[in-house]
Amino acid sequence: MIERIGRYEFTIDAYLTDFRGKATLPMIGGFMLQAATKHADERGFGYSEMTSQQRVWVLSRIAIEVFEYPKNDTTFIIKTWIVSVNRLFTERHFAFEDSDGKTIGYARSLWASIDLKTRKPTNLLELYGLSDYIHTDKLAEIEGMTKIPALKDNYEQAADFTVKYSDVDINKHLNSMKYIEHFVDVFDIDMFREKEIRRIEINYISEGKYGTRLDIIRRDEGDGVYVLEMKDGDTNVCSTRITWK
Amino acid sequence: MIERIGRYEFTIDAYLTDFRGKATLPMIGGFMLQAATKHADERGFGYSEMTSQQRVWVLSRIAIEVFEYPKNDTTFIIKTWIVSVNRLFTERHFAFEDSDGKTIGYARSLWASIDLKTRKPTNLLELYGLSDYIHTDKLAEIEGMTKIPALKDNYEQAADFTVKYSDVDINKHLNSMKYIEHFVDVFDIDMFREKEIRRIEINYISEGKYGTRLDIIRRDEGDGVYVLEMKDGDTNVCSTRITWK
Repeated sequence: MIERIGRYEFTIDAYLTDFRGKATLPMIGGFMLQAATKHADERGFGYSEMTSQQRVWVLSRIAIEVFEYPKNDTTFIIKTWIVSVNRLFTERHFAFEDSDGKTIGYARSLWASIDLKTRKPTNLLELYGLSDYIHTDKLAEIEGMTKIPALKDNYEQAADFTVKYSDVDINKHLNSMKYIEHFVDVFDIDMFREKEIRRIEINYISEGKYGTRLDIIRRDEGDGVYVLEMKDGDTNVCSTRITWK
Repeated sequence: MIERIGRYEFTIDAYLTDFRGKATLPMIGGFMLQAATKHADERGFGYSEMTSQQRVWVLSRIAIEVFEYPKNDTTFIIKTWIVSVNRLFTERHFAFEDSDGKTIGYARSLWASIDLKTRKPTNLLELYGLSDYIHTDKLAEIEGMTKIPALKDNYEQAADFTVKYSDVDINKHLNSMKYIEHFVDVFDIDMFREKEIRRIEINYISEGKYGTRLDIIRRDEGDGVYVLEMKDGDTNVCSTRITWK
């Protein structure tokens, strides 16, 4: 049997980094998706296998912590593994390393699988192979994923945008990583000069559909913590809690 | 000496493709940048070497033709090589292949190198190694890069956006590939259902700066051809000609 932990290397391309010459959170999120996809593919529960069973993976929650953003022209390593599975959800963890093997961040993610036709959750315990790869003796050393409470008051309108062609995935819904991009773009570039986003936690709630105008509202919770919500009218599409340090 | 042509493999990640389950033009553009960066790095005129000489590569023009967009969960191969160099410019070509080795597209690109302090062009003939890697016996079999004429009349306002954190590169200017994203997003998703962008040609003219509101104007030239211009007030930042088939 193939190893439980998958290890994947990425290059932080100098022409795709931010103004600090460092990887952005949406870039890291994109690499995480690539690592997760490969890890699952190699172990028999990847995209093709799921599609052949009329299922697709859906990201439900994610928490990413980055202690040190990788610099351009360096190698970035992602290790990923499955820590649990039940009927509805499976939890996947990630560890980030620089080219010297130093840990520079961790992430946790919670996935469901839905039936492509009914759009209803499918039983993950029936999924061939997944349970065999559970690796519980190693956990990403970051706080777990929590439910982010809805913003009821004291928030401000921070941005709005219309979901466009480049935003959407195969389901014509906002791509999981594009949420991160739209959320981080709410902050002024000067904040990225003085501080860094140490932790981002996302609850994916409903789907941002093509052509829809979405609002982003924000509440400053103090101590560098912000809660943001992406809304389609009154419907909450996605919530995030971002911690600056 | 290392080979003149560099060959790089990319995976078309299922969770990053568009609603058709195919790679997007901005994705392909990002892979091209990665391939160019690696090719240059391996041959001694890459990002680090340039930085140590207080220089940086700047993309001036590009033309990309895609006959067949790669599908998700497949391997996408980019070959790239240098075809010419003079004092001011070097031309780099690309060939795209699917995993069976079938050619599915080509691209040409024109690069200058500027001094990081003076922002003025530097002499590329002085650049160590570059001339040694010229490979003229193979050319990307697509029409050359032309100057796109300025739009003076009969155009419509197609979109506007403000340059945000995720849009900018290390110079705090709009990242070369983000131009493509903003341009393709001007078209309705229904066009992508019926047709495909067969060719895109871009002239990078001035720089889209952080915080600036840019307008995109468009003129329908007939036969699926559109000319678009990105403008900062009266200043033309970037022009493109897009051919749908």
